Amino acid sequence: MKDPKAPIGVFDSGVGGLTVLKALRHALPREDFLYFGDTARVPYGGKPLPMVRRFAWEIAGFLLRQGVKALVVACNTASSAALPDLAEDLSVPVFGVLEPAAEVARGYGKVGLIGTQATVESGAYGRYVPLAWAKACPLFVPLVEEGLWDDPVALLVARHYLEEAPKDLEALILGCTHYPFLKGTLEKVLPGVKLIDSAEATARKVAEALRQAGLLNPEGQGKVVHYVTGDPESYKALAERLGERVETLYRVSLEEL
Amino acid sequence: MKDPKAPIGVFDSGVGGLTVLKALRHALPREDFLYFGDTARVPYGGKPLPMVRRFAWEIAGFLLRQGVKALVVACNTASSAALPDLAEDLSVPVFGVLEPAAEVARGYGKVGLIGTQATVESGAYGRYVPLAWAKACPLFVPLVEEGLWDDPVALLVARHYLEEAPKDLEALILGCTHYPFLKGTLEKVLPGVKLIDSAEATARKVAEALRQAGLLNPEGQGKVVHYVTGDPESYKALAERLGERVETLYRVSLEEL
Repeated sequence: MKDPKAPIGVFDSGVGGLTVLKALRHALPREDFLYFGDTARVPYGGKPLPMVRRFAWEIAGFLLRQGVKALVVACNTASSAALPDLAEDLSVPVFGVLEPAAEVARGYGKVGLIGTQATVESGAYGRYVPLAWAKACPLFVPLVEEGLWDDPVALLVARHYLEEAPKDLEALILGCTHYPFLKGTLEKVLPGVKLIDSAEATARKVAEALRQAGLLNPEGQGKVVHYVTGDPESYKALAERLGERVETLYRVSLEEL
Repeated sequence: MKDPKAPIGVFDSGVGGLTVLKALRHALPREDFLYFGDTARVPYGGKPLPMVRRFAWEIAGFLLRQGVKALVVACNTASSAALPDLAEDLSVPVFGVLEPAAEVARGYGKVGLIGTQATVESGAYGRYVPLAWAKACPLFVPLVEEGLWDDPVALLVARHYLEEAPKDLEALILGCTHYPFLKGTLEKVLPGVKLIDSAEATARKVAEALRQAGLLNPEGQGKVVHYVTGDPESYKALAERLGERVETLYRVSLEEL
């Protein structure tokens, strides 16, 4: 049994998981977090699933060695590749972002999915919810990282990807943690379609599970320590562009994983 | 002294170097080639230079073990990171893509540079030619890989990046091997500006150097063997979208490097 005062580990290929971290901090203001961004190996979305699975195991091992009490895989590609194995084989609770989003989607009729190539091709969402349509959108991640989510460029790219979506789609799963930044743009292209973002659903699920397991921190202060495998300065600048203030940040070499 | 009948090794982070391979095959139709695309670790453009330098050494080692007689670093980021060291420390002739492009640029007045973040921030082009303006363009690589180089999206993105270019620019170095696909689009945004593509200049330089060194192949057949570190099927599909027919292709795991 882990110490309830231990931090929660959250990881992503890069900065996308910060949307999940934000929702977690909102739902669990008394918890402390370790956030791991694998920025040296980002993006995961075009890589083979067995490789992404290996990365997920390496990072999980690193975070467990830092003493986390639970693990949130805040990346759709890594969740597609490494869950449910990771949850079965580790001694701490492990949460992915697919199941919570899919649970919300089950309340709608015709459901679509947008995500990275690896997430879409893995078919992992199909385990949780029937999909009427799915499309890989490789340009969305770099668009968000360039800060262009409200730019006319994003609108044109979104039209390009979504032009073949069924006219009677009721809901669209944003199957990549970068995509919530594009919500305003996606609403213009698909008016009236419910956009399902896994961040809030995942945060609710984590909060409920920790409460049930008696793992809520009675005295945490909402601290976040960031770890990155790539260049710390680039990470900090990018995270701040996306609205996350980075105060404590360490570089981890791939050899330490 | 290497065997003139040995192949020439060409490498890039992914498919961008195929533009250089094409120019090499045109300039040297009797040579055979090994093309290495490090697709598991692409893109290099946002990674720290010391990491890219390490990748370049690993790949150079692999290609030398396959018996290449010369090495072409067909990637601006890797050339910025690993040259001139690699050329000084290896026993075969090594060619990068910066110096040939810069030599062409020296014939013009005000010269600009577009490239990846790593290439632009390295300042490596500045060693060969004075630059009046430089801009990192992270969206261009994914745009080309999506096959959108002639799309209105590309035009909008190009305007976004180039709007602050000096009005009296005479030449613009395309400092990334993906960018030649965008030539038509870039000409619309910067009419009258000479676009300098390193592929042809590099191929001319390689041909001349091999001739002088007595290393031209008297009986090669223009064969190309491709090696990739990522998913072979994705590579093949992408290479063919960019106009390169892939007949012989091997997957190399990162552990073999």
